[in-house]
Amino acid sequence: MEGVPHTSIRLRDKDIQSIHDQRHDPEGFSSVADDYDEVIKAVLDHDVLIFATPIYWYGMSGHMKNFVDRWSQSLRDKRYNFKQSLGLKQAYVMATGGDEPRVKGLPLIQQFQYIFGFVGMPFEGYIIGEGNKPGDVLEDKRAIADAKILNGLLKGKQ
Amino acid sequence: MEGVPHTSIRLRDKDIQSIHDQRHDPEGFSSVADDYDEVIKAVLDHDVLIFATPIYWYGMSGHMKNFVDRWSQSLRDKRYNFKQSLGLKQAYVMATGGDEPRVKGLPLIQQFQYIFGFVGMPFEGYIIGEGNKPGDVLEDKRAIADAKILNGLLKGKQ
Amino acid sequence: MEGVPHTSIRLRDKDIQSIHDQRHDPEGFSSVADDYDEVIKAVLDHDVLIFATPIYWYGMSGHMKNFVDRWSQSLRDKRYNFKQSLGLKQAYVMATGGDEPRVKGLPLIQQFQYIFGFVGMPFEGYIIGEGNKPGDVLEDKRAIADAKILNGLLKGKQ
Amino acid sequence: MEGVPHTSIRLRDKDIQSIHDQRHDPEGFSSVADDYDEVIKAVLDHDVLIFATPIYWYGMSGHMKNFVDRWSQSLRDKRYNFKQSLGLKQAYVMATGGDEPRVKGLPLIQQFQYIFGFVGMPFEGYIIGEGNKPGDVLEDKRAIADAKILNGLLKGKQ
Repeated sequence: MEGVPHTSIRLRDKDIQSIHDQRHDPEGFSSVADDYDEVIKAVLDHDVLIFATPIYWYGMSGHMKNFVDRWSQSLRDKRYNFKQSLGLKQAYVMATGGDEPRVKGLPLIQQFQYIFGFVGMPFEGYIIGEGNKPGDVLEDKRAIADAKILNGLLKGKQ
Repeated sequence: MEGVPHTSIRLRDKDIQSIHDQRHDPEGFSSVADDYDEVIKAVLDHDVLIFATPIYWYGMSGHMKNFVDRWSQSLRDKRYNFKQSLGLKQAYVMATGGDEPRVKGLPLIQQFQYIFGFVGMPFEGYIIGEGNKPGDVLEDKRAIADAKILNGLLKGKQ
Repeated sequence: MEGVPHTSIRLRDKDIQSIHDQRHDPEGFSSVADDYDEVIKAVLDHDVLIFATPIYWYGMSGHMKNFVDRWSQSLRDKRYNFKQSLGLKQAYVMATGGDEPRVKGLPLIQQFQYIFGFVGMPFEGYIIGEGNKPGDVLEDKRAIADAKILNGLLKGKQ
Repeated sequence: MEGVPHTSIRLRDKDIQSIHDQRHDPEGFSSVADDYDEVIKAVLDHDVLIFATPIYWYGMSGHMKNFVDRWSQSLRDKRYNFKQSLGLKQAYVMATGGDEPRVKGLPLIQQFQYIFGFVGMPFEGYIIGEGNKPGDVLEDKRAIADAKILNGLLKGKQ
């Protein structure tokens, strides 16, 4: 993100509860006292969203899945037009994993395709990196080359 | 599960924390005071595991993802041979969703393929059901036919 | 197809040449002296299309792939509104293979999703059967149950 | 392939018949009078195989599918240990398409994963390029960067 003004949010440092699925309750969703609202406000304030996640068990982290599951609540939240707002943004995915991520990470990419498709948010691209320990990914030449190209693109969008 | 002795665990009624990824900490994982251990013990006590989940945002629920993410901790837990034990079991998946689940649920099936593959647990089969509201799936003739065949199979395994 | 009026076409008994890709030739596609036109006319004359293929190397047979590749030619053929016509039909897929077809056949299902999506033809369903030798699939209870449900559906559409 | 000694084979310029599936015939496969044998000999003579294909209808070209389908014949051909020989090689895939290839080309990558897995040939990597007309792909910066990295790798293997 060098040279690109941005906000970085670590979902694992936030308190985001798993969804309590009240989609079919006559009263709808109850409000939840956690950090979700704060994060979603930041999301809505930005034009480009980068979903960066380790590949845990061939999917996004539970932290991120909890966050995305809660979108079902935001879709019904009268305070904002959640779907329409996301539809005006652009989405990228960055996923890093240790077990053949460029092949075994593909179901995750396909899942994001459907997620973004559901809210009408253009899926602009993704980078898959290989690495087990923190820092390993820096030795993945291809991921680094991809990241540089994305960096140039994002700088151009300012 | 009619006529099949079984234990049913609702992950959403359990307190299972998102993983605190300490795989690369010299001390390893700290123990977590939640219901995970209790659930994993039940898992290890059974021969057949059925992972039943609503399809939330084209993936397993955050509740289930949190549970699976924690397997990284169990893999390193000296109290049991987690991987070997799972390798002796059989796994099934049942997933129900509202948005073309038989197509858009396929990345989830592929993710489970890799999850089960990683621990060497045979992926014996899956049922994808269509339904939005609780109960809807009962009108999905094909899912019901699939479930009856599975029921017969499971009865035969006793 | 018991009780359902239908036309059955065996692509392997037809002479269908691989595409000569002239999409970007100023003159466009040259006509090809093979059975493709005859088959495409039969396709356009029906309301429901069932793409039945053995799973060869985790994909549709080369016979069928050659046939589908030629659609690029039909899309540009002034004799009919190919895309619009297909958009009014309904598509099903039946695929049988010997190596874990319900998991390893899923990329093929996803490919058909994109194929049908491109021409706007609703993807109404698919059946994956397991079997190696001709006839084996008849012992796949689940595929047979699926086929009976589809048979009932198709009878109801008449 | 700059600076890398190689043999380039255009399958579309070869006469390769669709498979006549005689796997279950008591006599086995009959020999076919086309260019398949010549191509397979070249394949067996090399250490690294790059499967380069346009993405036609979200899959490999019919020309390439016909070629791969015929491997079923080579697997039973007593003149060589086909599977073992492939298992000692390394495989790459290069696929270029015009309709969101980095997402809609993923089932093709997954298909190749299974194909290579079946013969035990390591799947070393893939490049997906975007382009419609011949030459377009040269403007896909990311594909070009990927190709340069692969070029360096292949040079290093000599």
